[in-house]
Amino acid sequence: MLTYSFAGIGPEPLYIHLYKCIKNDILDSILLPGTKLPSKRSFAKNLGISNITVENAYAQLQAEGFIYSIPKKGFYVTELPEDIIKRKEEQGRQDKRQAGYSSYEEESCEIDLVSNMTPPDNFPFSIWAKLMREVISEKSSELMKKSPWGGIMELRSAISLHLKQFRNMEVEPGQIITGAGTEYLYTLIIQLLGHDKVYAVENPGYKKVAQIYKSNNVACEYIPVDNSGIIIEELEKHGADVAHISPSHHYPAGTVTPVSRRYEILAWASKDKGRYIIEDDYDSEFRLSGRPVPTLQSIDIMEKVIYINTFTKSLAPTIRISYMVLPEKLLEKFCRQLSFYSCTVSNFEQYTLARFIKDGYFEKHINRMRNYYRNVRDSLMKEIKKSPLAGISEISEEGSGLHFLLKINTEIPDSEYIEICRKNHINVSCLSQYYNEESSGKNDGRDKQHIIIMNYSGIRLEDVGKTVMLLCKSLNLPYMV
Amino acid sequence: MLTYSFAGIGPEPLYIHLYKCIKNDILDSILLPGTKLPSKRSFAKNLGISNITVENAYAQLQAEGFIYSIPKKGFYVTELPEDIIKRKEEQGRQDKRQAGYSSYEEESCEIDLVSNMTPPDNFPFSIWAKLMREVISEKSSELMKKSPWGGIMELRSAISLHLKQFRNMEVEPGQIITGAGTEYLYTLIIQLLGHDKVYAVENPGYKKVAQIYKSNNVACEYIPVDNSGIIIEELEKHGADVAHISPSHHYPAGTVTPVSRRYEILAWASKDKGRYIIEDDYDSEFRLSGRPVPTLQSIDIMEKVIYINTFTKSLAPTIRISYMVLPEKLLEKFCRQLSFYSCTVSNFEQYTLARFIKDGYFEKHINRMRNYYRNVRDSLMKEIKKSPLAGISEISEEGSGLHFLLKINTEIPDSEYIEICRKNHINVSCLSQYYNEESSGKNDGRDKQHIIIMNYSGIRLEDVGKTVMLLCKSLNLPYMV
Repeated sequence: MLTYSFAGIGPEPLYIHLYKCIKNDILDSILLPGTKLPSKRSFAKNLGISNITVENAYAQLQAEGFIYSIPKKGFYVTELPEDIIKRKEEQGRQDKRQAGYSSYEEESCEIDLVSNMTPPDNFPFSIWAKLMREVISEKSSELMKKSPWGGIMELRSAISLHLKQFRNMEVEPGQIITGAGTEYLYTLIIQLLGHDKVYAVENPGYKKVAQIYKSNNVACEYIPVDNSGIIIEELEKHGADVAHISPSHHYPAGTVTPVSRRYEILAWASKDKGRYIIEDDYDSEFRLSGRPVPTLQSIDIMEKVIYINTFTKSLAPTIRISYMVLPEKLLEKFCRQLSFYSCTVSNFEQYTLARFIKDGYFEKHINRMRNYYRNVRDSLMKEIKKSPLAGISEISEEGSGLHFLLKINTEIPDSEYIEICRKNHINVSCLSQYYNEESSGKNDGRDKQHIIIMNYSGIRLEDVGKTVMLLCKSLNLPYMV
Repeated sequence: MLTYSFAGIGPEPLYIHLYKCIKNDILDSILLPGTKLPSKRSFAKNLGISNITVENAYAQLQAEGFIYSIPKKGFYVTELPEDIIKRKEEQGRQDKRQAGYSSYEEESCEIDLVSNMTPPDNFPFSIWAKLMREVISEKSSELMKKSPWGGIMELRSAISLHLKQFRNMEVEPGQIITGAGTEYLYTLIIQLLGHDKVYAVENPGYKKVAQIYKSNNVACEYIPVDNSGIIIEELEKHGADVAHISPSHHYPAGTVTPVSRRYEILAWASKDKGRYIIEDDYDSEFRLSGRPVPTLQSIDIMEKVIYINTFTKSLAPTIRISYMVLPEKLLEKFCRQLSFYSCTVSNFEQYTLARFIKDGYFEKHINRMRNYYRNVRDSLMKEIKKSPLAGISEISEEGSGLHFLLKINTEIPDSEYIEICRKNHINVSCLSQYYNEESSGKNDGRDKQHIIIMNYSGIRLEDVGKTVMLLCKSLNLPYMV
């Protein structure tokens, strides 16, 4: 059945959004003439919206001649004159993105500075497909065997090698546990460390992390971060047991925790038996400048650090493989208590990814993407400096990951600016949104207004000019690229 | 790195087991001459055993000439005379199974009546591989898009069709949520229904289900079952909110819950807003005789039933795709509260499985497997009747799933019999093991001695005679096939 996303559609009525999605799919020949549309009831159920919304959308489409109804049978797509389809086709990709086709959920706008997704066309699909074919023909018997709970050894060995090469980490393959996404691994960690622990997340920080702790019914505290990362005194003050942090690349503030603070965090953890650190290191492969800082895992001799990373962000959203590295004592505990869980990752993709890493394709991909992202970033900064934004804005934190901060001198509140942007088909987020509102203190979101998170990982090089133009337009600054 | 399973090895010292595993892999040419063995330390770490164990195993192998050491470098596989390798090869598959290679973990014996795994060679791999290749070449752009949180619609539509055909269930594709294994789905259900609920599991029953509830820190009660399934009064008595049951095919008792009890269970659930039923329907495709009983889901009009099933058991352990069907109100709640979780199933396997079902291969596979299993079962019963077991045993519950019960008139306690069997290279389990020991009452495991669970789903037709021979041998009954 058709599925559309209703995420981030702004103030537009739901039925208008649905109407536009279907209309676009008809014009794009995704829905072909004669196709039966889903029944109102089942469509509404599927999309999680009311029957009335679907009815209104269908009525609008029917009124405009895009669909017709056959009594007691349902609604069907009309055969449109060819020139309408053609004209539409020439507009190409952008309209399709506008249609908000949910398979790539955050794409319901022209320019997306929010979603942290590598554009799919940057993924070396033909190589991946080649390796898949090899795995099918060479590994037929292995493919039919159950994966060990931690994942197949070939992949874990390949990851171990990768960690050595990229992060200078000495990790035994047996310490690596793979899982279908970091979200799943977080829930395993909760079961491993205990439901009675107090989990600390960064404030500001990724909301999803806190959401997962709360959804799993464990105490979750928001800990303020300063320019060096999480604040130790606040960890103590909040009675935290487990600190979930991203020292290599804080999102969204962009800070890299310096070595001195890293030692302080390790010292904090070593003060109590039940204290642990979850080092979330996603995207660290894409650090564009500066010297890489050693991971906490690599300087931890007290077995306090669980290192976690994913291929979903560095490769493609379709590859649902993440992993964690457990220190020996926790590995033993995991083995005793949680190895009854089957491995959640597809065997087949484990073998394919193992080859992809071992044969050097992953390294090539990362190098290629770093160049690509560097170009996007440089071009974006250059464009900003050429634009009217130059006089009223300031760029910071450009070195860590795939975003930088753009502080704008304006009176418009963030929420309002975001709305205006949305209407102009550009999806932006601001630093203030990443603060937990319930927790107060000096790092309150109210002090952090007017800072746009320039998350450029989803921006195509050819869209850089447009991006800056739309940011200007939303501030009422005329600018033509 | 090498990985071996230490599950179910019996009283054999760990180092002897490890020694045998490595020796077998050398004789099977899995470990080739010149291969460097893992360092003792890392191998021990990886296997979760002590360094001393590995050292002893290596010493034994070295003493027998299978490996040699190079000082300060490590241990290497010796080049063996060809005739030793050849002789070994002729013995074929069974020795390999004996070696306990962990990729197929439960196979550390010749005959396995415990693991509930379809033998991998029954899976139509060439068709699966063909469909995989088709998906790679036809779906390249879809494969690079993120799957919607519930799974791709093509698969959910295919599952909906399958449920209609096989279980006469009317389910909208949008109600189906896919996940990487039922274990993962259970944890989602806990988050959906609440950590404050009391979850009830069947006693006797699958221990893993209770293990997952406990590991997720929710109250879990063991509810006795009688000949019709779970006992309603006991559900009430234990203050259960959520009943996790398998009415179509209780494991291991084999009972099928009749319609009358099904209505009673639904009535129980409808008495309180917070009550729900998790209907675990795995293996129902393989019901061999009798009329299929309608699922609880299909007769539930109060939106109380979460139906759950998996392809891991019906297809192959490598396919980590399970699904649940949510009633509309719970679907809405899921959508609101839990749709932030990404889908855990590989996109690629979703598309492949969708085709496999849609093109009719799944149906063919099930029909073929039913015939196959019927043959195994009939042949097993025939063999039992021919053997000395005939006079001292009784067969029951042969109609429901892929196992039947064999009650034996013996004085040997179950634990002892299981041990003897293990030494005779046959892995069996008894009904008494599936009772929770902590919970007491009339259904206590002590009353249920001497009932073997004849789980024949992992038995090859050609091994039926040997199976019965080994069962006899373990009872000191001489029998030659």
